[in-house]
Amino acid sequence: MSARRLRSITPFQVMALLARARQLESEGRSIVHLEIGEPDFETPAGITAAGVAALQAGRTHYTPALGLAALRQAIADDYRRRFGVEISAQRIVITPGASGALQLLTAALVDAGSGVLMTDPGYPCNPNFVRLYGGVPVIVPVDARHNYQLDADRVRTHWTAGSVAALIASPSNPTGSLLPRAEMAALLEAVRERGGVLLVDEIYQNLYYRDRPYTALEFGDDLFVINSFSKYFGMTGWRLGWLVAPADYVQSLDTLAQNLFLAAPTVAQYAALAAFDPQTQAELERRRVEFQRRRDYLLPALRALGFVIDAEPQGAFYLYADCSRFTDDSHAFCRQLLETAGVAVTPGTDFGMHAAKRHVRFAYTTSLSQLELGVQRLADFLQHPQ
Amino acid sequence: MSARRLRSITPFQVMALLARARQLESEGRSIVHLEIGEPDFETPAGITAAGVAALQAGRTHYTPALGLAALRQAIADDYRRRFGVEISAQRIVITPGASGALQLLTAALVDAGSGVLMTDPGYPCNPNFVRLYGGVPVIVPVDARHNYQLDADRVRTHWTAGSVAALIASPSNPTGSLLPRAEMAALLEAVRERGGVLLVDEIYQNLYYRDRPYTALEFGDDLFVINSFSKYFGMTGWRLGWLVAPADYVQSLDTLAQNLFLAAPTVAQYAALAAFDPQTQAELERRRVEFQRRRDYLLPALRALGFVIDAEPQGAFYLYADCSRFTDDSHAFCRQLLETAGVAVTPGTDFGMHAAKRHVRFAYTTSLSQLELGVQRLADFLQHPQ
Repeated sequence: MSARRLRSITPFQVMALLARARQLESEGRSIVHLEIGEPDFETPAGITAAGVAALQAGRTHYTPALGLAALRQAIADDYRRRFGVEISAQRIVITPGASGALQLLTAALVDAGSGVLMTDPGYPCNPNFVRLYGGVPVIVPVDARHNYQLDADRVRTHWTAGSVAALIASPSNPTGSLLPRAEMAALLEAVRERGGVLLVDEIYQNLYYRDRPYTALEFGDDLFVINSFSKYFGMTGWRLGWLVAPADYVQSLDTLAQNLFLAAPTVAQYAALAAFDPQTQAELERRRVEFQRRRDYLLPALRALGFVIDAEPQGAFYLYADCSRFTDDSHAFCRQLLETAGVAVTPGTDFGMHAAKRHVRFAYTTSLSQLELGVQRLADFLQHPQ
Repeated sequence: MSARRLRSITPFQVMALLARARQLESEGRSIVHLEIGEPDFETPAGITAAGVAALQAGRTHYTPALGLAALRQAIADDYRRRFGVEISAQRIVITPGASGALQLLTAALVDAGSGVLMTDPGYPCNPNFVRLYGGVPVIVPVDARHNYQLDADRVRTHWTAGSVAALIASPSNPTGSLLPRAEMAALLEAVRERGGVLLVDEIYQNLYYRDRPYTALEFGDDLFVINSFSKYFGMTGWRLGWLVAPADYVQSLDTLAQNLFLAAPTVAQYAALAAFDPQTQAELERRRVEFQRRRDYLLPALRALGFVIDAEPQGAFYLYADCSRFTDDSHAFCRQLLETAGVAVTPGTDFGMHAAKRHVRFAYTTSLSQLELGVQRLADFLQHPQ
């Protein structure tokens, strides 16, 4: 006996690939990991030291459901410093990862039958969160012509009677594409026209490679922004994120947070207070530059091998590559790359249906030398597939 | 614009009381806290030290969604050692607190309209979790005649066509009552007869005051057990719990966990590996005895004041007290106790509707001297209410 929703909630295929990769490694095989959506770096030393100090000071009890007041204020201060926007700390809700933020949002906004517009390809959990609460993911296929992003026109054409929200990610996963500033304003306006709300996932915001980032919060106080300490701040395993909400939603979100998870992990919240220190910021900037070096190596190297990459990533740490020169089944191709070439890559089918069998995602979350080894193995394999 | 479910998800009233108590304290008032469902003890030193060591070793990345294999095995070993039951580690799912376990279960089992039987009074989040996923809490009023627990007869009479599960807690919150072993077997049989599943919340299991506890897992491998490192192990702020599931549900739970929260916090999982060390166990046993001392003081002291306590707690750290000699509005009474007497207590209305205005919950999660001060203040107030 199971809830019907289980039939529509899909596992990440990359998890099975990762498990297989670990098995091969335990048998002595060398595997180059280009599948993992997690920075290879450990948490910066200053953040970890703050976590250690918090534990040693006995900070092991619950925090308020909305999070530590000092952390909410530190995030508000960072928005002012980094982006010049004034956000009241009262509008900031600390969550267990961006997952917790997505969950609060869907619980707060999605009724049975409610539509939420989102891109295909996109983050695999997004449609699943909407389905979990009985809603309907309104899938909008995007490609390079749309910079792999929603835009105002597409919102107007895809909006249905039951739609309540549009969810975008900038930079996006799996493409690393950005929604340009002017388009963000137009998109927000289109969503407002339809009487919906805009949800903007900014978890890769500070991992940028050309233009300095902005926040959608510049454009209004009636939208929701999701962010996280996982990717840029290197705190994946700590499970800490946040949500900026319109002021009149905060009380409902507080009630939901009390019920859904009581509070985010305490040690993570104290540790994150150190995330905005100048020393930590300098370390994070070095890492950003290192991700850029990796991208600048991997992008032309993959193109030289015959992958077509029409979304030059402007953020995050992913390359979304057309592999149709080699296969019409990206999932089988990924299995083969793993088993034969010892390179783990994520099939496009994890990110949706649209042209998914023709795409794979490379994550440059490993060292340059590993990337070079991976490219060498890919070259050998593609010249002599077995 | 909000989801309809928000209208049926209730906040904990104790949170508003706690906030008011903190405000009074910031104004210099002394408040005795008998409202908090969280042990006053810090996390045992051995567990915290293991957390510190994990951070220092750079254990800051994601774990598998089902949790660290070593922790799942450690929990399985503890079931064997403590209760003599053999549980495969494969059936153990590590979750972000018992909240995460309840959420996985309702997501996995509850469809729109599905009924879940539960007691009133009971843990406030239980009906909210069911409502979150479109289900219907089937509320069964219980009192001292039923030892504040569901039983087989009551399952048979309250089961509806749409019911899919019964959820019980032993020891219970807010009463600390246990479901006797023989009744557990009968209850499970009644749920099976109806084609449903039994969910047993055992988060207060090892906080017992008379009979040594058992686990519902003794009675079958077709039921779900929820547990947590929060209460007995003193790890509330770490957000770590677990679920024992029938083997054929684990794959679905893995998929749900990937989507809902990716994984439980990594540092908490490494820290919890030390929870079963003999030294830590000895410390936890001292704390259990201390809770018993507090109960043995508070129970007769409250009765002497005129509170009627017909559920002598056999576990957990709560006393559920009839206050109808003093009030017919427990919520107003709690406000008054806080404002006038400086004693914070939780109104029965947080735990349901059944006789809720005649009851309050005292938590003995503070030192004996604070309990004595609280009783003195209650005595003064009840003799001279203002």
